[in-house]
This record gives sequence, structure tokens and C-alpha cells, in this order.
Amino acid sequence: MTLTGQMLIGQHPLRGGGAPFRAINPATDTPLEPAYTGGNAVHVEQACALAWAAFDRYRETALAARAAFLDAIAEQIEALGDRLIERAVAETGLPHARIEGERGRTCTQLRAFARTVRAGEWLDVRVDLAQPERRPLPRPDLRQRHIALGPVAVFGASNFPLAFSVAGGDTASALAAGCPVIVKAHNAHPGTSELVAHAIAKAVAACGLPEGVFSLLYDSGYDLGIALVSDPRIKAVGFTGSRSGGMALCRAAQARPEPIPVYAEMSSINPVYLFPAALAARGEALAQGFVASLTQGAGQFCTNPGLVIATQGRPLERFIQMARDALQDCQAQPMLTPGIFDAYHRGVDALADHAEVVATGKAAAGPNQGQPRLFVAQANAFLANPALHAEVFGATSLVIACTDSAQMRQVSEHLEGQLTATLHLDENDLTDARTLLPLLERKAGRLLVNGWPTGVEVCDAMVHGGPFPATSDARSTSVGTAAIRRFLRPVCYQDFPDALLPYALQHDNPLQLRRLLDGQREA
Amino acid sequence: MTLTGQMLIGQHPLRGGGAPFRAINPATDTPLEPAYTGGNAVHVEQACALAWAAFDRYRETALAARAAFLDAIAEQIEALGDRLIERAVAETGLPHARIEGERGRTCTQLRAFARTVRAGEWLDVRVDLAQPERRPLPRPDLRQRHIALGPVAVFGASNFPLAFSVAGGDTASALAAGCPVIVKAHNAHPGTSELVAHAIAKAVAACGLPEGVFSLLYDSGYDLGIALVSDPRIKAVGFTGSRSGGMALCRAAQARPEPIPVYAEMSSINPVYLFPAALAARGEALAQGFVASLTQGAGQFCTNPGLVIATQGRPLERFIQMARDALQDCQAQPMLTPGIFDAYHRGVDALADHAEVVATGKAAAGPNQGQPRLFVAQANAFLANPALHAEVFGATSLVIACTDSAQMRQVSEHLEGQLTATLHLDENDLTDARTLLPLLERKAGRLLVNGWPTGVEVCDAMVHGGPFPATSDARSTSVGTAAIRRFLRPVCYQDFPDALLPYALQHDNPLQLRRLLDGQREA
Repeated sequence: MTLTGQMLIGQHPLRGGGAPFRAINPATDTPLEPAYTGGNAVHVEQACALAWAAFDRYRETALAARAAFLDAIAEQIEALGDRLIERAVAETGLPHARIEGERGRTCTQLRAFARTVRAGEWLDVRVDLAQPERRPLPRPDLRQRHIALGPVAVFGASNFPLAFSVAGGDTASALAAGCPVIVKAHNAHPGTSELVAHAIAKAVAACGLPEGVFSLLYDSGYDLGIALVSDPRIKAVGFTGSRSGGMALCRAAQARPEPIPVYAEMSSINPVYLFPAALAARGEALAQGFVASLTQGAGQFCTNPGLVIATQGRPLERFIQMARDALQDCQAQPMLTPGIFDAYHRGVDALADHAEVVATGKAAAGPNQGQPRLFVAQANAFLANPALHAEVFGATSLVIACTDSAQMRQVSEHLEGQLTATLHLDENDLTDARTLLPLLERKAGRLLVNGWPTGVEVCDAMVHGGPFPATSDARSTSVGTAAIRRFLRPVCYQDFPDALLPYALQHDNPLQLRRLLDGQREA
Repeated sequence: MTLTGQMLIGQHPLRGGGAPFRAINPATDTPLEPAYTGGNAVHVEQACALAWAAFDRYRETALAARAAFLDAIAEQIEALGDRLIERAVAETGLPHARIEGERGRTCTQLRAFARTVRAGEWLDVRVDLAQPERRPLPRPDLRQRHIALGPVAVFGASNFPLAFSVAGGDTASALAAGCPVIVKAHNAHPGTSELVAHAIAKAVAACGLPEGVFSLLYDSGYDLGIALVSDPRIKAVGFTGSRSGGMALCRAAQARPEPIPVYAEMSSINPVYLFPAALAARGEALAQGFVASLTQGAGQFCTNPGLVIATQGRPLERFIQMARDALQDCQAQPMLTPGIFDAYHRGVDALADHAEVVATGKAAAGPNQGQPRLFVAQANAFLANPALHAEVFGATSLVIACTDSAQMRQVSEHLEGQLTATLHLDENDLTDARTLLPLLERKAGRLLVNGWPTGVEVCDAMVHGGPFPATSDARSTSVGTAAIRRFLRPVCYQDFPDALLPYALQHDNPLQLRRLLDGQREA
């Protein structure tokens, strides 16, 4: 298909009337055709009306049919071929192999949710049979299942133009739950968004689903996004991006006559702890692994290791020295957008006010290239300066030297909520680690031992979430199959005749679900 | 024990310094000794510091130990004997048998959560084993469990001085999840609250738990409650009460530097649908059942049937006539507090501005007695007057006469979110009911056929919740064992050595949990 610059409202391409904008190839600083124009309140109304009209039917699709739809989206994305890869590379400056890998991840994710839908555990069926003879009062027949919340607004992320964008984790999990989705495309990759949106729309049509199951909108500013979150037919929001952006959506969602949940993944500096025995035994390998994790993808990962915490002394000095040597050899890489590049430099400058620069990567050889940076500060400075706690989106990290393990703990207590916390430890560090672990469980959604936080597996056990401000809702994950739960609510049916019950709750259990029946889990 | 008028901060009774208040026996309008005085910010600080200190230890108690604690609370409440019943009757004006029943329900609820804790499904253990040979990248070992959110603030309800108060559903489910609890007692039953708080504190001591697991605070106004919700160590809030009260807590929770979830159960008028065949076949039985449900407990149930929806015509006229006859024979009953009695009359007056009074119960024979009322209005009036949609807490209901089933649907679309919706139907109504059902699933947390919404079973399948403003979070229930989920969040452990893993996640599965292992549910 040829890119048109149009939005997609159900099956209908439509040109927004807003100020035109173009994607920019950050590697060359050149604008990419075509121009896109944002929509307005009329388009929000149209997309929401279609989504609302589709909702009751879509949420009751058979499990197999809904799973087939998710599989079909994956197939349609794959059918876009190199066209998709090339456009995404041009719009992000990310390497070809990285984008290919991300496409694989995106399709794997859709298929994982298809399996989750088929398995049906998300329905969480509970049946308490009637006890007509019970005294003093009989017990009615009570049955519970989960149903979809309603149409969901999804805001694509800049740093994963496929896996956290139009057909990314939020969209896949919301569709899996039975929610129609309206995506507000990220302005950094409108062409990639248009391609993927058409793939989804093809799958909608091929599966015979109502067109309102999916729409794509563009926004020339911020008004359309706020209007979308404020529409009474939208019942939940998925977002990955900046803290200020996420909080703006949270405020809009709370200001509605009917407030709705917002799942915003916002801000994390992902502390990495280097325990003494591990640091003494393998400082060089740690330094290499750290710099590799830090500089991957120009450091533009939510789980980028932005903070290293260790006790001061010779081993830490050697680690810093080796990290410095490694970092100085690192190329500057194009960042996702000129805006992100500018913000990176502002962030680096803010750190430099309170911490010492110990290493800078190679000089930029082209536009928008972020030079990696490594800073060091004493724990006291970190405790005294909230500026050192802020996320700097890019390949920058800060090493905090603590006087002892008590100060490591004090630093940790002062951290905000995080997506991840990483512990590098050896056998002799276990006691120290065990002492710190309860605190870290309170602070982060995922804890790692002897690994690096970048790289988020799509699986059942993953938690990509965490206490505020890592996310706006620590009770959830935005990656992994448990993400489906964010878009569900329980409904109880009391004394319903079988003929009125949904299949999931009927007496003969036609879907063969493993129900909780009178308090016992069925085999 | 003798009532002291003191708060209970951990194991320490402490007198608040606020303006004294006394419970009032609404049946006699006489104040009850002793005087209670509300606490201030210092007491919030003390209770939160204790709760925070207790949190890490309490949340890691063995499942059996935590279950034994919940059982012990039930035993200690039973051990209070008639003293508790008498005080609760005096403070609420509710009948002796009702309070005895409620004590049974409260203890049943605690024991149900004890069973839920032991079964361990709430941990939702997921294990994805390492795949070191996977290409292009190996998969790490990933394990997920749920942990407690943190200390929880619970606001007791006026209408269930035991089952939704100090040791009620919110407290039981939060303790089950591993959260310390700080209760802000309802000022209508401070003596009942003090008795139950001491029962819990005895169980805390008997089980060797840290004292901060439970505290009870009084508030002479509203400041302490807001300070409690605003304390950074409080991580979630449970509330049952008015819409204005619930929304005030939601605002306070959102205004924090770290916003937290609020589970507020607030407002519901619980529509009852009388379908044509059922109404024609058994109008009299329906009228009797309706009036019995409406007037039970002076109408002071969250699930009170405040709205009846049917198509106009002779069968509805007969239903109204029979309901009128039944209602006119109903005694006025003392309401919970003079304030609730006043609010009831204001609510009744507001309805009278837009609807016709067709029946009034017997005149009051004592103070604070609310006379039951029945109103009728045409659907057009209901659609035009939002005042008719407001909850009137007490034995008042409004019958809406619709021209046809299309108008019934229109009225239903205009309803706010509800705790319940009830359908009275016969075989010949099934088609009509099936058409309306998707709409009602969107509006309510529990749907009933041929029953009455009052009476909320404590079981696995119950949903006592629903879309806003029935609750502030439709994704949850405040009654039934699923209520434990409100106070949990997932944490993922990546590549942890067995020695550092919590028992629930260890390789040999020492707790014998039914894990989701590599995508398969264990038998």
C-alpha cells in the first residue's frame, strides 16, 4: 500500500484537518513524506461511536474467533514485508535488525495473547451452587466471569514503533480482553502506524468483525488525545511515554464525570546493585555488561540501567575505570527524534550540575546522535538532590558511591518506584542481598539477579510495571499475558436460567473451563 | 472489657485530643457513654509508622500463620459475646437478630479469607523456565508472585457496624493479602468499633504478630481521615459510604505525590425490571417481595431496590396498587443516625418534586424513624430529571412506567453504574431479557433473576461492585473472596538463585501451589 497520511476510522481512511506534520528521519534530519494531519473532536466522536457500536458484539466473540483475529493481525503485519521494516527504520533511526526483531516480538506477542484467550483462564469462572436447604436462608446460585471494560484508548510509544505502538502490547491485550481499541499514533512514526493500522483493519474485515473494533487517529497537538480520554465511551487508557504525558492523561481520566483507569508506563531509572563480592570478583565483566546494556538502542529503553549503586573503594573505582574505557569507545547513535535528542541533552546537563562526568562516548558523526555519558556522585549528593533521581531518556547512567551497606539501603529507601531493580551478587553477597530484598520488592515490579534489565521477555511470568512513577497502576503489567487483566471486570449472575447465561457460565461448562466450583478448583 | 473512648494504636490505647462525640441510640435519641475524641496528625503518624514497621514481616507470614490469625480474629469477636451485640444494637437501632446475624457473617467472612489465604491461588504463581539454548537470545528464568500493596486505610460503614466496619470485608481482605490495616472508625458506632478493635489486637498479640498490623483511629471531623489517606505509607484505601465521602477520599488519594488506589463503594439505586409476562402472571407476589426487600433494615442497604422499571398498563397498575397496600402496613423503623434520618427526608422531598407519592408507610412512633415511601414517575420525567437518579438511602423506591420495551432500554441506557440489576421474568420474557442483558452487564456488577438484590452472599463468585458511581473501581469486588485481589500487586523474579526466592516461587514448589508452569496449569 501507498502511505496516504490519513487516519483510519473503522474501515474508512479519513484526512484530519489539523496542522500537517511529517516524520523525520533522525539519522539524516530529513522529513519523510507524506504529511499527516491530526484529527479533531469530530473524528474522536466518529471513532468512539464505531467502537461503542462494536463493543457488545466484539466482547462476546467466541474464544476461538477472537484468538483467530489476533493471529490474523500477526499474519497481516508479517505480510507487510520489508516495506514496514524500511519505514520503521527511516522513522526511528533504529537498526534494521533491531526493527526486524521487534516485528517478531510484536507478532509473538499477538500470538501469545491468542493462546491466552483460547485457554480462558482470564474469564476466572467461579460457580457457587445453590443451597436451597440452607438455614437460616437458602443460598442462591452465583456465577462469576470477567467481561471487557469497554473501548480502550491506546497511546503508542516512541521507542518501540511496533511492539509498544499501534499493534503493541496495550492493543493486543485490550483486544484479547474483548475491548475495541482506538490508537492515538505517536507522531514520531506516523507511517509505520498507518501501515500497521491497515494490517489490523484487514484482519478485522477478514474475520468478519464490526469495523469499530479498531481505529487509528493522529493528533497535530495534544487536544485530540485529551478529547479521546475524556470521551464517555472510552473505559480505559494504555500509555507508554513520559511522566508528564502520562500524568496529563491521568488527570484527564480523573476529571471525567465517570473516572476511568489509566495504565501509564512512565519513568524508571532501574537501579543496579553491585554487591561487594561480585564487584571484587568480576568487576571487568560487570563493566562490559553494564555498558552494553546502557548503550543498546541509544539507551532508549524503559528499563535502561540509569543508576548503579555500590559501596566505595578500590573495586568500585576499577569498575568505573573499566566502564569509562568501554564507554569512551561507544559510538554516538541517532536518537528517535530531534525532540528526544534535545531532552537528552537537557537531562545530561541537569545531572552535570550535581554529579561528575567520568566518561563520554565518541563524538556525534551525524545529526541527533546522543553521546553516551557516565556520571559518578557520592550517596550524600544523591540523597540531597532530587534532580539526580530523574529519568534521563538515553544512554546515560549515574554511579552512586555509598560509604557502606547501610547507606546503600538509605539510598534505596529514597528511590521512587521502578520498573526493575538488578542485583549483581556472588555467594558471599547473599546475606546482604536478602536484607535488601524486601525493600526492593516494595520499589520495583521486576527484580533480576546477575543480568541486565534491558530485554523484556513476553511470557506469562513477566512484570513490566511497578510502583509510581514507574507506572500509574502498580497492580498491573503492560508486558506478558497477565496484561489482559487490566481491561477486565467481574460480573456476577445470580439464579440465572441456563438459557440466559453466557457459555462460560452454563451448567454443563461447554467451554470446558477450569472453574472454581464451590471453592474447589476443577481438574 | 469496659469501653474507654480511646483509640488503639497497635497495642496501645490512646486518647485523641479532638472534640468529644458520643454515639446516639437512634431508637431513643439518647447519647451513649463514653465520649470519644478524634485523633490528629500525630496519631496518624504513630499508626502509620507502626504499620510500616510491621509491613515487611507481616506480608511474608506463612500462609498457615496468616490464616490462623484471621481465624483468631473471628474467635475473639465471638468471645466478646452479648456485650458486642448489645452495644451494636444500641448504636444502630438495628434489631438484635439482625446484629447477631451480622456477627455470624463477619466471622464467616474472616474464616472464608483464612481458607483463601491457605489455598494460595491469590499468589498467582507463574514460572517460565530458562531456555539457555534459545536463539537469537536465551530466555532467562522468570517467576511471578503477588505481594501485598502496603498498609491499607479502611473507613467503616454506618450500615453494617460489624460486616463492613472494623473487622469487615475490607479489613479481612486486606489482612488476608498481607497488608497492615488502619481503620478510621465510623462515628455512628464508636463503641462497637472499640470492642472489635480490641478483639483484633488480642488476635495480633496471640499470634505473635507485630503490633502495627492493626490500629483503630477516631476522627472528630474529617481531617484525620484525609491525613490518613495522604500519608505516604498508606498504599490503598477501602471505603463504604456516601458518594461525596468516597469522592473526597479519591481526590485526596490522587493529590498525593504518589497516587494510590481507592476502593470506594458509594452509590447505587439497583434497578429492578419487571418483564411483561412475569408481571402479568405474578404481580402480587412481586409486590410482596419488593416491599419486603425495600423495607428490610429500614431500607439501609447498598443494594436496596430503589428503582422499578416496567411497561405501563394494567399489570403495572395492579403491581403498584398491591405494593402500595403492602407498604402502607409497614412500620417506620429507626434509621442508623439522626443525620441519616435527616438526609432520608431531604432525599424523599427531592423525589417528590418530580415524581408522584403513591404510598407512605405507617407514621413514626419514635425518634429517627424513616417512613417507607413509594413514588411513581413516567419514563420521560425520569429521563429529564437527574434528581430522580440519585440514591436515597432508606426505604424509598421509584417506579418508572415506560411506554414500551424500547423506552425501558432508553431509561436503562441513562442509568449510572450500579451494584446490582434485577430481572423478574418468565419463559415468555426471555427474548426481551436477552436483548437487555448486554446493556445491564455494562451497568452493574451483579445481575439477578427472579430474586431481590438485598442479601449479599459471602462466597467466591460474589461481585459487590460495579461501574462508577456504584464504586470507584469497577475492576473489583468488596464482598467475596476475590476482594483479596484489591490489595495485591505482581512482582517478577528473574534468574534468582533458589536460596533468594520466596517459598512460593522456589524450584521444588514447597507450598504445593498450582502454578502456571511454561504456559501449562499444574494439576
